[in-house]
Amino acid sequence: MNEVRIGMVGYKFMGKAHSHAYRDIPMFFPDAPRPVMKLICGRNEEGVRRAARQFGWEEAVTDWRELVRRDDIDLVDINAPSDAHKEIALAAAEAGKHLFCEKPLALTLADARQMLAAAEAAGVKHMIGFNYRFAPAVRLAKKLIDEGRLGRIYHFRAAFLQDWIIDPDFPLVWRLDKNVAGSGAHGDLGAHLIDMARYLVGEMTEVIGMSETFVKERPLPGSMTGLSATGGTGGAKGPVTVDDATLFMARFACGALGSFEATRFAGGHRCTNSFEVNGSLGSVKFDFERMNELHVYFAGDDADVQGFRRVLATDPAHAYADAWWPPGHTIGYEHTFIHETVELLEALQENRQPVPNFHDGVQCQAVLEAVERSIEQKRWVRPDDL
Amino acid sequence: MNEVRIGMVGYKFMGKAHSHAYRDIPMFFPDAPRPVMKLICGRNEEGVRRAARQFGWEEAVTDWRELVRRDDIDLVDINAPSDAHKEIALAAAEAGKHLFCEKPLALTLADARQMLAAAEAAGVKHMIGFNYRFAPAVRLAKKLIDEGRLGRIYHFRAAFLQDWIIDPDFPLVWRLDKNVAGSGAHGDLGAHLIDMARYLVGEMTEVIGMSETFVKERPLPGSMTGLSATGGTGGAKGPVTVDDATLFMARFACGALGSFEATRFAGGHRCTNSFEVNGSLGSVKFDFERMNELHVYFAGDDADVQGFRRVLATDPAHAYADAWWPPGHTIGYEHTFIHETVELLEALQENRQPVPNFHDGVQCQAVLEAVERSIEQKRWVRPDDL
Amino acid sequence: MNEVRIGMVGYKFMGKAHSHAYRDIPMFFPDAPRPVMKLICGRNEEGVRRAARQFGWEEAVTDWRELVRRDDIDLVDINAPSDAHKEIALAAAEAGKHLFCEKPLALTLADARQMLAAAEAAGVKHMIGFNYRFAPAVRLAKKLIDEGRLGRIYHFRAAFLQDWIIDPDFPLVWRLDKNVAGSGAHGDLGAHLIDMARYLVGEMTEVIGMSETFVKERPLPGSMTGLSATGGTGGAKGPVTVDDATLFMARFACGALGSFEATRFAGGHRCTNSFEVNGSLGSVKFDFERMNELHVYFAGDDADVQGFRRVLATDPAHAYADAWWPPGHTIGYEHTFIHETVELLEALQENRQPVPNFHDGVQCQAVLEAVERSIEQKRWVRPDDL
Amino acid sequence: MNEVRIGMVGYKFMGKAHSHAYRDIPMFFPDAPRPVMKLICGRNEEGVRRAARQFGWEEAVTDWRELVRRDDIDLVDINAPSDAHKEIALAAAEAGKHLFCEKPLALTLADARQMLAAAEAAGVKHMIGFNYRFAPAVRLAKKLIDEGRLGRIYHFRAAFLQDWIIDPDFPLVWRLDKNVAGSGAHGDLGAHLIDMARYLVGEMTEVIGMSETFVKERPLPGSMTGLSATGGTGGAKGPVTVDDATLFMARFACGALGSFEATRFAGGHRCTNSFEVNGSLGSVKFDFERMNELHVYFAGDDADVQGFRRVLATDPAHAYADAWWPPGHTIGYEHTFIHETVELLEALQENRQPVPNFHDGVQCQAVLEAVERSIEQKRWVRPDDL
Repeated sequence: MNEVRIGMVGYKFMGKAHSHAYRDIPMFFPDAPRPVMKLICGRNEEGVRRAARQFGWEEAVTDWRELVRRDDIDLVDINAPSDAHKEIALAAAEAGKHLFCEKPLALTLADARQMLAAAEAAGVKHMIGFNYRFAPAVRLAKKLIDEGRLGRIYHFRAAFLQDWIIDPDFPLVWRLDKNVAGSGAHGDLGAHLIDMARYLVGEMTEVIGMSETFVKERPLPGSMTGLSATGGTGGAKGPVTVDDATLFMARFACGALGSFEATRFAGGHRCTNSFEVNGSLGSVKFDFERMNELHVYFAGDDADVQGFRRVLATDPAHAYADAWWPPGHTIGYEHTFIHETVELLEALQENRQPVPNFHDGVQCQAVLEAVERSIEQKRWVRPDDL
Repeated sequence: MNEVRIGMVGYKFMGKAHSHAYRDIPMFFPDAPRPVMKLICGRNEEGVRRAARQFGWEEAVTDWRELVRRDDIDLVDINAPSDAHKEIALAAAEAGKHLFCEKPLALTLADARQMLAAAEAAGVKHMIGFNYRFAPAVRLAKKLIDEGRLGRIYHFRAAFLQDWIIDPDFPLVWRLDKNVAGSGAHGDLGAHLIDMARYLVGEMTEVIGMSETFVKERPLPGSMTGLSATGGTGGAKGPVTVDDATLFMARFACGALGSFEATRFAGGHRCTNSFEVNGSLGSVKFDFERMNELHVYFAGDDADVQGFRRVLATDPAHAYADAWWPPGHTIGYEHTFIHETVELLEALQENRQPVPNFHDGVQCQAVLEAVERSIEQKRWVRPDDL
Repeated sequence: MNEVRIGMVGYKFMGKAHSHAYRDIPMFFPDAPRPVMKLICGRNEEGVRRAARQFGWEEAVTDWRELVRRDDIDLVDINAPSDAHKEIALAAAEAGKHLFCEKPLALTLADARQMLAAAEAAGVKHMIGFNYRFAPAVRLAKKLIDEGRLGRIYHFRAAFLQDWIIDPDFPLVWRLDKNVAGSGAHGDLGAHLIDMARYLVGEMTEVIGMSETFVKERPLPGSMTGLSATGGTGGAKGPVTVDDATLFMARFACGALGSFEATRFAGGHRCTNSFEVNGSLGSVKFDFERMNELHVYFAGDDADVQGFRRVLATDPAHAYADAWWPPGHTIGYEHTFIHETVELLEALQENRQPVPNFHDGVQCQAVLEAVERSIEQKRWVRPDDL
Repeated sequence: MNEVRIGMVGYKFMGKAHSHAYRDIPMFFPDAPRPVMKLICGRNEEGVRRAARQFGWEEAVTDWRELVRRDDIDLVDINAPSDAHKEIALAAAEAGKHLFCEKPLALTLADARQMLAAAEAAGVKHMIGFNYRFAPAVRLAKKLIDEGRLGRIYHFRAAFLQDWIIDPDFPLVWRLDKNVAGSGAHGDLGAHLIDMARYLVGEMTEVIGMSETFVKERPLPGSMTGLSATGGTGGAKGPVTVDDATLFMARFACGALGSFEATRFAGGHRCTNSFEVNGSLGSVKFDFERMNELHVYFAGDDADVQGFRRVLATDPAHAYADAWWPPGHTIGYEHTFIHETVELLEALQENRQPVPNFHDGVQCQAVLEAVERSIEQKRWVRPDDL
């Protein structure tokens, strides 16, 4: 398999990020299978045609069913709004297409499980878009843990802090509508933290959370792009039906303690996706706003020079760095998607499951729902019990 | 009241910090009442005599009852191990002495309440040693909140991270013995976070926690000073009866959400006593390892220059700064005690309660115990219900 | 002019960066003229063919004269080694091609002037690749200065620190050969600082420098890519004929004082391209290793909250940010080339000179040579006197 | 010698810092000889009496000649304005007193040499107050260099940045008067950088500088304390006769290159006394605004975890740390004076010269004057030629 023919559903924020990854791969990862940008799909005909032209897709359609039926498509890339993931994935799996789905996999755990089962039944490959795993600095954290250089893990603490809706007049966009988005900060940001925790420290055995919607109603929206939006006219308001912030604590199977916080009300934090891991031999710290850096501490360093090292993960010793620029020449957000897509394409070539895949999407969803249940019932909940 | 005659019980880590504060005050705060270092008390005669000489106390005794009885003492400063606080405080109050007690006020909420009641019944002044309130950068955070410059508060997140017992061969010192210390990281470090939260954001209405003792037994100790210690001979071990780490979440009366973590197992963190507050108009961040700095964000800054400001709280506009050095010339840990003691002495002079006082000690203890109960019972607990 | 047909000479580090810019522009800057990647040129036939395939050029040639003669080329992009710039540029200008030349413009000021004169005589547009001007954080610095928000400028201090040849066994690559590279750290790194200084603070009236070659001979090289290389076999060594480090001081026409340092011997600095500007009303600081950040200070801030703000230049208020991702989602090194190329393409469309152009290349070269002369003659030199 | 009887001339900023050091030593360094605060001297009788009371001196006098004559004084501490240093030191040496003189030693190199000669002729001990040497983080830098852990030194770059006179209406205080202060930023701040360079890297063989007085006249002053002052009445102005900023470059005897900048016009920098040293095996960075930290890089670290370590110099492995608080509990500006004074007292006890001493003052003055001459003559100057 030297090339992979792709049909993509969705053309907004994630659609742009994925498209760019497909464009960049032949140049920076020439040994990976070549992604062929066949078909893009979106509901708004003018919008999707413009996106096709701009992003470099061969054709545009407005009905994802048409895309799924096409013989010349190997892989269906699903980055439409979250409430559409399941139906598209099931149909695509049934049509024998490999699947690449943005997170969250689905709005509910039951749906997520159904999607995994469908993919497995169809024998197709499946990947989920937890892109932050693919920052070189995060890969370094994983490597240090896997090689035992941090020792036994005691703590994982993570916070995903944003502030884009802190203004109460910011409009009621789809991400604030439970029917479309499933949840708010929890599913959008917390999902990334949960995946990071699982990636680095392993499964969680029990969780308990709390959440809040600080601003209960907002102006109805005009238009939206990325995370920005304009207010509509007329001054009408509607209810916010998702959480503005969700926190939870967790116990890991390995014995570590976890602390998680996802919020869109942390003023001054545009995109602080941060975590720290403390082990018996060392610690690592990461903040996505400085995504090229991993701060690394070793308890075994000479007594007079112990301290967190600021490692710039752009050296030849770091994952993916060779594909890019000389040491110290940093990369950005979009590169996480490029690396993620390299994993996807190489897995297809090697006839193996890419990682992370729908199994990871299900496990993440189980934790998300366990937290939600723990909030409703005000008690600890075991994800395995769901 | 131009001078205050002091009798102090305890002469180790806190005794040294308090003594130094008394020595420095006449020089840097010449308008405050003059502390007279009359009497120091400790159980080890040689040790307390040496401390008296070194720290500058007029006399040394080995029985605190003798100290409490003395006519020439106005104030009893209690910084003996935590299990001795109550008995001394009750006797001192009964003897009409003003009280200055290190945190935690007592080992239990019931004891703490009894101490507060005794002080109130005796009509004496009482203070508790939450020294971190007195860092100028913390004072600035308080000022910004009180003046409404952060707006409505949404989040308080705090972590007190240390690593001094991460080595499993570190010995079983008194701070790891529940009978003496009451609790581990929770009461030692978490108590500071709780007080900071109350100081800045107000009372908490419900909490839920989790905790762990990662290293269950340790070598019996030789000697200990400050936070360092040496292992004893013979290789005998004893059980660790306190928590190595305790996390909890809280809801504040004002509607804010709180996240707390106290641990002695965070490698690379010698003394990261840190918090962040997010409000509708701005945010502040503090880390005691850089105690002269407060990071301040205002949502109302011009759109192209928004970002956290690193404010060095050493300007004339900052609390206590005028007493010290020119701007940019930083101060250290011990200065928090000096400022704390200035508050104590001035309150005595002005015949008012110093702040924080035993009431704050009781409220802190209520949260500590609510967290402990929430851990035992695996459910949310309201401090007011205790 | 809706598209620009490009012929590029060079296909290594800079060739890759430029190629990627051409590929990304239609997607992220769809309103800019479309770059058409017609022809790539390099001396090694196999290498240039592979590059053509990988980077997406339509054709590859090995003789730049052929490229210059082609009718279907509007713009010649010159990123071959520095010693080849002049000959290519002169021929391309004569052929009526617009010019885009990497820095340094030439090996000597005389050559640079000749290139500018040739471009002007031919009436073609010309640009020079000072890409760091195009980091959004740098654009913000420029905006603050131009709007008077920093007031009168007192200081410019800049250091470009790298460490890629600090190992004495690193081989003698072309960048260490005066005949090919012109100079060492001075022309490679210092040139960027000089351009930044001119961009932000204006022209320099006099300079004095010092330089050193710490490691006088090195192993002859094997192969080289980007800034990495392998040693050759046999253990033969050759002389290093360029500077390892060059420092200089400058006086600006506006009265400011300048401090400059360029070195490849600053261990721990992979690519610290940093500057600070101090004005009567404020200051800015930049470090390319955190290229999305500008640290900004205003003397007029309220007295209790003065301090450098960490501004993440990813908000809609910042240059180029709208083309990319939501606030807080950072970009990388390669984006400076994309923005630079947007300026080039838009200038061609608008029939104006792009900025920076050969005039800037000449002025930079004048400072570079003035510094070199000041080093030889151990006295202050006025660039205008050259 | 178990105690040292001190007479101190000067009672302002430095007088306060020294007095506090004397007060703290018996408590924190009980094994050092005990400083006895006998006599303080100042020209303003009311002022010096108040200082004596506040700082804890036994007696106050207004004529330093009286102080010098006293039999019960072992050590004369000179921290009066710089123009008074010489006369007092010569008299005190003649009277057989040990000498502790604030920097700069004198207003001219000739005077400094005369002072050194006088002290040597009298056979007394002499120390100069380069207090920054005594920050534990600086001690660590020195240790790493001395132990060869940074290898061969290539670069020293240092900047002492302040902004306390950036406001053109700040009054014409004595530090801006050449007759009293000798020079401006150069002698006040640059002297500290020069001493640090000599301490860490060794002697300089040649220098060249530049300087500027940005604000040429200022309001005549009212009163002044520390670095703050109030403007006088009447609006009269006077000329600033010292430099606002001085930069210079240097070559070290060891082959390293040096860059120095001292300015009082760097907005946002209250007291950025910073340096960096790059060697073949590693680097260190220091900024006094975070004086407890040294950033340390080792080229020999494992390839995937190379980066500057933030070392908090508060561990038992660090100089002076044992005298203070547990790891992570930071110290401040005043502690540099305490450590400095410990060196002084111990040297007296051990009958050896303290370090740094008048020899260091002379060498520093030679570099200061060489820089001044290089500015006047616009050429490189060798300090040894003066």
